[in-house]
Amino acid sequence: MAGSAGEPTTVTGHPHRFGEPSVHPAWLPSEAFRALGSRRVLVHGDGPLVDTVETEVTWACSRFGGQALVAPYRDEPVDLVLALRWAGPLPAPATRALAPLNETGGGLGDEGFLLTRVGDTTVLLAGGPAGLLYGLYHVVRLGEAAFDPGLPTRRHRPALRRRMLDHWDNVAVHPLMGQVERGYAGGSIFWRNGGPRRDLARIRAYGRLLAACGINAISVNNVNVGGTEARLLTERLGDVAEIADVLRPFGVRVHLSVTFAAPVVLGGLPTADPLDEKVRSWWATTTRQVYERIPDFGGYVVKADSEGQPGPLTYGRSHADGANLLAEALAPLGGVVHWRAFVYNHRQDWRDRRTDRARAAYDHFAPLDGEFRTNVILQVKYGPIDFQTREPVSPVIAAMPATRLAVEMQVTQEYTGQQRHVCYLGPLWREILGFRPWGEEGRTVAAVVAGEPAQGPTRTRSGPGGGLVAVANVGDDPYWCGHPLAQANLYAFGRLAWDPELDPAAILDEWIDLTFPPTATEDPALVRETVHAIMDDSWRTYERYTAPLGVGFMVNPGNHYGPQVDGYEYSPWGTYHFADRDGVGVDRTRATGTGYTDQYPWPWRDVYESPETCPDELLLFFHHVPYDHVLHSGSTVIQHIYDTHFAGVEQVEAMFRRWQLLAGVIDPALHERVTDRLDEQVLSAREWRDHVNTYFFRKSGVPDARGRRIH
Amino acid sequence: MAGSAGEPTTVTGHPHRFGEPSVHPAWLPSEAFRALGSRRVLVHGDGPLVDTVETEVTWACSRFGGQALVAPYRDEPVDLVLALRWAGPLPAPATRALAPLNETGGGLGDEGFLLTRVGDTTVLLAGGPAGLLYGLYHVVRLGEAAFDPGLPTRRHRPALRRRMLDHWDNVAVHPLMGQVERGYAGGSIFWRNGGPRRDLARIRAYGRLLAACGINAISVNNVNVGGTEARLLTERLGDVAEIADVLRPFGVRVHLSVTFAAPVVLGGLPTADPLDEKVRSWWATTTRQVYERIPDFGGYVVKADSEGQPGPLTYGRSHADGANLLAEALAPLGGVVHWRAFVYNHRQDWRDRRTDRARAAYDHFAPLDGEFRTNVILQVKYGPIDFQTREPVSPVIAAMPATRLAVEMQVTQEYTGQQRHVCYLGPLWREILGFRPWGEEGRTVAAVVAGEPAQGPTRTRSGPGGGLVAVANVGDDPYWCGHPLAQANLYAFGRLAWDPELDPAAILDEWIDLTFPPTATEDPALVRETVHAIMDDSWRTYERYTAPLGVGFMVNPGNHYGPQVDGYEYSPWGTYHFADRDGVGVDRTRATGTGYTDQYPWPWRDVYESPETCPDELLLFFHHVPYDHVLHSGSTVIQHIYDTHFAGVEQVEAMFRRWQLLAGVIDPALHERVTDRLDEQVLSAREWRDHVNTYFFRKSGVPDARGRRIH
Repeated sequence: MAGSAGEPTTVTGHPHRFGEPSVHPAWLPSEAFRALGSRRVLVHGDGPLVDTVETEVTWACSRFGGQALVAPYRDEPVDLVLALRWAGPLPAPATRALAPLNETGGGLGDEGFLLTRVGDTTVLLAGGPAGLLYGLYHVVRLGEAAFDPGLPTRRHRPALRRRMLDHWDNVAVHPLMGQVERGYAGGSIFWRNGGPRRDLARIRAYGRLLAACGINAISVNNVNVGGTEARLLTERLGDVAEIADVLRPFGVRVHLSVTFAAPVVLGGLPTADPLDEKVRSWWATTTRQVYERIPDFGGYVVKADSEGQPGPLTYGRSHADGANLLAEALAPLGGVVHWRAFVYNHRQDWRDRRTDRARAAYDHFAPLDGEFRTNVILQVKYGPIDFQTREPVSPVIAAMPATRLAVEMQVTQEYTGQQRHVCYLGPLWREILGFRPWGEEGRTVAAVVAGEPAQGPTRTRSGPGGGLVAVANVGDDPYWCGHPLAQANLYAFGRLAWDPELDPAAILDEWIDLTFPPTATEDPALVRETVHAIMDDSWRTYERYTAPLGVGFMVNPGNHYGPQVDGYEYSPWGTYHFADRDGVGVDRTRATGTGYTDQYPWPWRDVYESPETCPDELLLFFHHVPYDHVLHSGSTVIQHIYDTHFAGVEQVEAMFRRWQLLAGVIDPALHERVTDRLDEQVLSAREWRDHVNTYFFRKSGVPDARGRRIH
Repeated sequence: MAGSAGEPTTVTGHPHRFGEPSVHPAWLPSEAFRALGSRRVLVHGDGPLVDTVETEVTWACSRFGGQALVAPYRDEPVDLVLALRWAGPLPAPATRALAPLNETGGGLGDEGFLLTRVGDTTVLLAGGPAGLLYGLYHVVRLGEAAFDPGLPTRRHRPALRRRMLDHWDNVAVHPLMGQVERGYAGGSIFWRNGGPRRDLARIRAYGRLLAACGINAISVNNVNVGGTEARLLTERLGDVAEIADVLRPFGVRVHLSVTFAAPVVLGGLPTADPLDEKVRSWWATTTRQVYERIPDFGGYVVKADSEGQPGPLTYGRSHADGANLLAEALAPLGGVVHWRAFVYNHRQDWRDRRTDRARAAYDHFAPLDGEFRTNVILQVKYGPIDFQTREPVSPVIAAMPATRLAVEMQVTQEYTGQQRHVCYLGPLWREILGFRPWGEEGRTVAAVVAGEPAQGPTRTRSGPGGGLVAVANVGDDPYWCGHPLAQANLYAFGRLAWDPELDPAAILDEWIDLTFPPTATEDPALVRETVHAIMDDSWRTYERYTAPLGVGFMVNPGNHYGPQVDGYEYSPWGTYHFADRDGVGVDRTRATGTGYTDQYPWPWRDVYESPETCPDELLLFFHHVPYDHVLHSGSTVIQHIYDTHFAGVEQVEAMFRRWQLLAGVIDPALHERVTDRLDEQVLSAREWRDHVNTYFFRKSGVPDARGRRIH
């Protein structure tokens, strides 16, 4: 029983200065520090991030009976050395352990570290202070394995420099969108009712979790910038600085979403024209003032000329003009602009079948390749539409070799069950990151955002990539994410941003062992097996009972939760499935459709063009086909719809039953919270099944081949 | 040109104490008083309502050069006598005029009046003070015709005693529904942000308009009673009393919507069980306290056990128990309970085709006939669903001969264009009021709510009927109703409640001449003709381009505006059309459907049962038919859908063009406001047309016989 293990795994932090008693510790419960905390640990180095490491180690050792070795160091045996490379004269224990590594510690970068064994000592040598912090949490993740005499020597450094979360948090409560736009975990941890929340302990706990999964940047406000939020850039800057101060010891830099109209709204200028000298000067001055308060400020995030937000097009200027304006102000100070490529006509006429929202980002941005300054990061959603459960990878990613690109994911489950459904997104992100836009011989998406140059004669920029960005899923909920299992999405995003080649199931293994420490559970194997069984395939399960075959958008308008097959079918949002009595899907071919396939390089431009080669799971994204079209799976489209919807619900029902196996094994409060959400997931999945099946049965008239009841 | 007529007809009241300068005078512009105000007028009688008449006459005569004769009366010629019957010794001029009427003035009731000519004098003899007030406005309506030597002698008295408006106004702003639930005319004239608005001049102006169209009761708050609104019954009673004081001089009694849970919520009792002695005592005491503050208080309005509101079913008691509880408290004080019959399961499973929301009111209430106290008025929506553009008349109206029934209409255009569309509802209400539930030989709906007994041996209660109630459409908008032409709906409701046999076109004539006085317009014929052309058929035009053939509910969920054919199709609200590839409509027959037709007496139970006899406009309400089913009109269902939707839009476009004829003829501000709304109506009607036509084309596959473009 969990209760017998001495320490509950839930809704409690550990009692040092990073903890917060009323909130769930997520992947950093005290128990996760047992292996480290019961050892003799030497920390060597200086600076605020090293202080963070020392605090963690000191606390852990006091908690679990180990010994944190602090200056003046005695010459005594040590189990673990956590040392910053070239951090000054070495104390005796460190000297012994580190001497053999003198030559091998290079090439780690600021964030990397080397982990090895020297004699009876585990040695972690970090390339910089952030590396020491990431190394510490790596050791925590390893647990006892970190002290295995056979520990292999390994260098670790992040594949991507920029690993960022965007908070769509509003300062003032938005009349429609609330405190957190598309937030499903209560209020904001930063803001409440128009002002800062000032719960610094909570922000500190958050920073610690971010560092422990590898995130190094956040933006603190919604990309839709309202009147109150605009002022974060100027008179409310102190509120941002306060957050930055709390997050700095965790290696997290703070960014700000700004409105392109700021020179008008805040500066009183008559224009925000990016080529206007006064506008440029206003941004330069304003940005300098930001850096005076926040010397390590990350930069700006901008949603411009999109869904009603202002932008450079108003002034007849290009997105490059707009982005470069801000980049110019930020460049001398070391900041970047995240300029979002999410630009499309949201007042589309649904009657017009030639206009295709999927084309929009490419059509707007591809022609601008090469025109952006080097500190502009063009932030591209992973798919061409909007965070659907299944979309093809955005063609923009392959179309702008001379531009620094970031890919944007969505950790918050806007379209994937809103943290009421279990939907582990690691496999989705892994697929996207591993996708090869130029075919098997070419680079992956991960390589593009890492900034790796293409092989061969292709024109390509050099320098760092834009990295990975995701919309955050945390709020002031005691479990951070509403759904306790949704914490795994946040964790997995950080880990994949660090190493895009990680196996999502392996990440889940890490997360399970951290969140439900084996040493605090009587039946760790049952916990691991059950959580895996529930989560591993949960994204595909969610896909089964929702919109079929990549067609997207069958949700209720506005809140985007639950089924409404025609919800967006006659809307101005550009999201249609065109189902009629004969067939369904969007013809995006060059031959007969919107020509969207043309935006892909070979081989995908051909693979997607033909229903014969298009992958089943994207068939209706690219093609309008009759209901009796036979998939590669051998099933017809209509029978596939029926089968997957029945199967999806059965799988959710099985998830529910499985979860009950953990009653009494893990913390009861957490167990109950997940049970409640699974209850809703079962109901919602049945609603999806019946709504979608009935809709297509009424339209197609084709009965289920297996004779199941369709209403 | 309107500007040349001396007095603008818009956004100005007249300068006496009832006026309010910033608001449109609706059907009481100064100019409407010209005929009366230029005469010598004698008012004879006493009391507050007579004071109101005197104030009107005095002001009108001072405005238009006539003479208001006040005590001591001189013996001089008089053009108009407005006299209360038996109001004490008559002054000389009145004596001369009234003497011949001594014998004929009986039977007028409190609210009736007799109008005739005696010599050169027009004489109005009222049965009571309210009759004098209504008579005054009748004379205003007649204008010069009131002084025509050939004026026929006529008795006037209202067909219905109770002519009431329900305000769905919230005191506190509701997070979803706002200040006025289903309000499309700005804020409330009574409440703002949690408290009374205290714009007494506006309420006074409103009372005057109500009297001038014959309304004699209002409820001042929403039937969905929130925490703040509940307190109007007790600690906030002063706010209600203040409104009652302002409306009293206009013959308007104030009612209050209360929560059935009041004994718990306000009284601190552990139960609201209607058979509990403490609960009865609490209501008795509380009600006495209400009457101490408001001696002519009208009574309570209750929505119980409906859409989440509390009610007697919670305690295992019947609706009769619940209603009688309140009736018992009100009876000794002369008050009534309006108990709404709008009770149904709003968590219905759409998969279950046997449950039928249309049946709900009858199933709940018909078995209770005879169990309600005589001061309970069961308030029944005109149709079995919810204020749809086309519904059959509710079978409850014919099912409860021993119950005092009121019929509830909706002046606010929730489902009929939300005051952005012109939709003159007079013809709809006239149809309902003239409907004969027992066939051609039986009574009309109007007769039922008037309390007329049935002929023959049918068991039927004696005593007054419950009258007519409607949900109000006014707000703090300068034109009262958002859409200036929507004022006609409020006016027509009052007039039909007074005389249900009035011709809606004749009511419109009255309204046009009052609102756009011929004496203030250069081309009164053009105004009259144009407004008639736009409004007369506007309800049927609205029907044409929205949900076809009585099927109902094809609106966007939540806000109920604009098309979404499947918006409620898979919802728990019980509002479905069951369209599939073969046909559409709800089978409500006894033979094969939900059995709803069984709730009607002969002949309608048979007329509706068969698609051969069911009226076209209700076909899909009662029957699920194939798209090629041939209507009585000769058209197929599918072709009817296409044809009416194309025709409806053409008619709206014609409305728009016609309205432009009045540019420069009527007040420019009003003209522009209507133009703006017509603009939206054209766009919205096109959206309806294309959405509905495309939906059914995609489903049926049947092309338009006339080859028009369907998307």
